[in-house]
Amino acid sequence: MANATPKHEDPHIPAALIDLLEGEALGHLATVRANGTPHVTPLWIDHDGDAVLVNVRLDRVKAANMRERPDVAISIVDPRNPYRYLAITGRVVSSSVDGWREHMNKLALRYMKVDRYPWFFEGEERAIFRIVPTNVYYEMGDT
Amino acid sequence: MANATPKHEDPHIPAALIDLLEGEALGHLATVRANGTPHVTPLWIDHDGDAVLVNVRLDRVKAANMRERPDVAISIVDPRNPYRYLAITGRVVSSSVDGWREHMNKLALRYMKVDRYPWFFEGEERAIFRIVPTNVYYEMGDT
Repeated sequence: MANATPKHEDPHIPAALIDLLEGEALGHLATVRANGTPHVTPLWIDHDGDAVLVNVRLDRVKAANMRERPDVAISIVDPRNPYRYLAITGRVVSSSVDGWREHMNKLALRYMKVDRYPWFFEGEERAIFRIVPTNVYYEMGDT
Repeated sequence: MANATPKHEDPHIPAALIDLLEGEALGHLATVRANGTPHVTPLWIDHDGDAVLVNVRLDRVKAANMRERPDVAISIVDPRNPYRYLAITGRVVSSSVDGWREHMNKLALRYMKVDRYPWFFEGEERAIFRIVPTNVYYEMGDT
């Protein structure tokens, strides 16, 4: 990482890298806590065109952070090529509690190859957060 | 990810997960920009006991962020088990410009299996940033 080869910035996710949001790569979502310090954890990621979608339990630190401070960043690396990655800066434009269960099942199919997310629990509350990129820094992995 | 199994927090990196800082796993370093928004990018990581070490070019956004706002967070996932990970919150306690070249060669050996980092360039300036964890959130991957 951190090499001297050219990198690129754009407000959109390049078509040539959109597969990173459709495969098994994890995202690492950075948010900011109330005290101004950063928080980052791995999570499953999805997209709807240029918008990144994350499905997050409402009792998680990142959910509270996204609701209160919508500026976020996401880093996604190709598991097969560490020099092929997206580092997205964006903003949460909406969060929806509709359809989160079906969406988790869709993600479980993609990431776990199972038809149903196996860890639902009684009383679980989630939302789908929609993140619109404001800047996309990327490397194509062709070093 | 984001399942309902127990997770754990501690101010130290568990011995059973220290291999994540010694192998091929990338870190995802989150910092905060001057405007309060988060920044996250993948990078090579090292450690010295409980302290996480990152070797960063001084012209990078993350270097400026770490120098000006030392609160950081790092997420590291085992490439062989997405449910085995560290999410470290910490603070940059020092940055040193001594020995960065040798340190990059050490990291290149680990991550690229080459004796010498291949992308040094004329005029390059780096520092080794030392990050002391204040909180370590982790999952052992035994779900």
